[in-house]
Amino acid sequence: MCQPRAGTDRRNVRLVPVTSVFDWLDTRADERRRAGLTRTLRPRRPDSDLLDLAGNDYLGLSRDKRVAGAAAAATLRWGAGATGSRLVTGTIEAHTELEHELASFCGTQAALVFSSGFTANLGAVTALSGKGSAIVTDAYLHASLIDGCRLSRADVAVVAHGDPSAAAHALRTRRTERALMVTDSVFSVDGDLAALPALHAACRETRAALVVDDAHGLGVLGEGGRGAVADAGLIGEPDVVTTVTLSKALGAQGGAVLGPRRVIKHLVDSARSFIFDTGLAPASTAAALTALNILRDEPDLPGRVRGNALALSQRLRAAGLRATEPAAAVVSVLAPTPEAALRWAEDCRSAGVWVGCFRPPSVPDGVSRLRLTARADLTEGEVDRAVEVITRCAPPRAGAS
Amino acid sequence: MCQPRAGTDRRNVRLVPVTSVFDWLDTRADERRRAGLTRTLRPRRPDSDLLDLAGNDYLGLSRDKRVAGAAAAATLRWGAGATGSRLVTGTIEAHTELEHELASFCGTQAALVFSSGFTANLGAVTALSGKGSAIVTDAYLHASLIDGCRLSRADVAVVAHGDPSAAAHALRTRRTERALMVTDSVFSVDGDLAALPALHAACRETRAALVVDDAHGLGVLGEGGRGAVADAGLIGEPDVVTTVTLSKALGAQGGAVLGPRRVIKHLVDSARSFIFDTGLAPASTAAALTALNILRDEPDLPGRVRGNALALSQRLRAAGLRATEPAAAVVSVLAPTPEAALRWAEDCRSAGVWVGCFRPPSVPDGVSRLRLTARADLTEGEVDRAVEVITRCAPPRAGAS
Ligand SMILES: Cc1ncc(COP(=O)(O)O)c(C=O)c1O
Ligand SMILES: Cc1ncc(COP(=O)(O)O)c(C=O)c1O
Repeated sequence: MCQPRAGTDRRNVRLVPVTSVFDWLDTRADERRRAGLTRTLRPRRPDSDLLDLAGNDYLGLSRDKRVAGAAAAATLRWGAGATGSRLVTGTIEAHTELEHELASFCGTQAALVFSSGFTANLGAVTALSGKGSAIVTDAYLHASLIDGCRLSRADVAVVAHGDPSAAAHALRTRRTERALMVTDSVFSVDGDLAALPALHAACRETRAALVVDDAHGLGVLGEGGRGAVADAGLIGEPDVVTTVTLSKALGAQGGAVLGPRRVIKHLVDSARSFIFDTGLAPASTAAALTALNILRDEPDLPGRVRGNALALSQRLRAAGLRATEPAAAVVSVLAPTPEAALRWAEDCRSAGVWVGCFRPPSVPDGVSRLRLTARADLTEGEVDRAVEVITRCAPPRAGAS
Repeated sequence: MCQPRAGTDRRNVRLVPVTSVFDWLDTRADERRRAGLTRTLRPRRPDSDLLDLAGNDYLGLSRDKRVAGAAAAATLRWGAGATGSRLVTGTIEAHTELEHELASFCGTQAALVFSSGFTANLGAVTALSGKGSAIVTDAYLHASLIDGCRLSRADVAVVAHGDPSAAAHALRTRRTERALMVTDSVFSVDGDLAALPALHAACRETRAALVVDDAHGLGVLGEGGRGAVADAGLIGEPDVVTTVTLSKALGAQGGAVLGPRRVIKHLVDSARSFIFDTGLAPASTAAALTALNILRDEPDLPGRVRGNALALSQRLRAAGLRATEPAAAVVSVLAPTPEAALRWAEDCRSAGVWVGCFRPPSVPDGVSRLRLTARADLTEGEVDRAVEVITRCAPPRAGAS
């Protein structure tokens, strides 16, 4: 099974100093170990009885029988893969249908499905900016948007987190005609909300476009889960572009960009992460479409997830923990050190409650924390149990600054 | 269904000049239209009887009942989505198993699965380079590797396509200690092969690492389909990192990085497109795993796809077309203009043969062409029909330079 030639070479190589090419990786690994920042991949079991407060399956739809059933059926009908770029063989009818339904549900002219939220963000930011344009961003932007900005060749100005007047100032004082303001709607670490109306007003005043990543808003905020951009009354605006992921509230995989028809057409012709990438798998496409239909039919799901997030946050704060106030489904609990965050998370897990542990580089302010996510299908008993376990494992005094 | 507020705003907006924020997109669209570079998405039908020479499903496994069945079963067992980053809730046992099987099949110490080949390339290139390092690349690199280089903050030197001595010169004259040589194995447009042994020799001489994208090599080249890097005897080398996609010969979706254990560990801790991205969907993971097992059990599949590609190329050349000589499954047929390429492709399609049409910006040399891909399951009759139709629709004289 192993290649004889490779095997031989590998043995020879030990005699020459070539292995040093990657020695710097060991140094980095040591540094991370000392700083408490080493990560391990822990496979989830299908029959796990941990209480999941760590995933982003906000509406509990990933395992919904209708969603999983549609994914299975689509695979059997279309095959396991899209087989090519969306521009060649990789567009199936389900992609087009999902695009139509996303646009109609959220209230935009058009939508375009990408293979992930990550590549949707890269595509939207790069294709709508470019050399000779400016981008103003919030300092706590999601990594995929940051990478989009880095790829854009635009003049990028990063302003303080949650400061729309700093954003307005940067937009006003830019040196280029074209500009984008780029922000998350719900910030992924703390779950706080961007001031979308103020940012949009600044964009309109300065003739910039607003690009909002509604990854954590879709299915959770707005009427019937239409998202934070719809909730702010901005979804159909001609100068607003929204990106979403299909991997959180919709329980599947993939991403999409929603906006004016000409924006979507432009992405088809020029977004590199769309053109040079295989289309989203039939299973994921059908799953997202079915989840969207369920969301449309059950408009009270979003309220339930928000209610559960609020309950979690209020009760943890009442118990003395430094929990954030959730705008959507995400609550975070600040920890004094990365090691403490990791220990708290491990202790919670041992007690049957699975919470996220975010440490640098996944936290923009460098502060490690537990990251809890609510789901629409959490029971009262589960919320009780979660609060009890977290309060016990993350002792209130240890979290005080 | 539409947002009343957004609807009202949309109507008001027509009275103010705000729509001009995206007017530049119309100008770009006009330019593309004049240059023959507009793209349309054409959904594929599950019951299409077109002969598919356009997709990348080289082994015909995407619709294999075992592969699609495994995907369907995994969805029902695990749900439609991974529900989180691989570092949080997004790793399932099937990911770990696929990583183990990929590494063991190809012959590396370890492997790491990403949500796409695109994000695998971004992750590998960025995490292994960085400020103060150098990257040397072939000019015809895949877009995802180019974007990885742009994100890397390294000193990037692009050398002529297929010129290992130019690459060696650039590596020798670099100003930094650390360096990567980055290349496709099989170039995606023309299907030609990089001079991997010469590039590796240059890397070893200059103490650089070699990163090879084997997207079109896995399942097609090497003993039993172990890929171009294995075929060159380089797969287990301590200074070689290979990226692959799960979306072509393995018929699914996703990507992976294969290499020394310390490289893979480093990616887990630092590749942004791994950390900040939802894990690959269970269906796609299981599909790729099953396809890999089929490939292991049917080691003659790769020879069949190569044989079919050769037959296509030889017969098109014999008929006077400017077809490339395939190193793997891809054959391209040069066209004099983008319009001609598009017309040829449309005429082939009307005659029942689906071929790819590659135009700028998808062609590094700016030359539009038809792109044909062979499959292991093409029959002799299908090859005959393809040659007959293509020769009729892409008249040999029109292709002469
Ligand atoms: C705010 C935000 N944007 C984008 C993404 C990327 O989406 P995906 O995981 O679907 O690629 C994520 C999370 O993964 C996110 O939290
Ligand atoms: C050479 C090469 N690398 C990487 C990719 C990206 O892989 P994926 O489509 O799985 O994202 C492709 C094609 O899509 C490719 O042709």
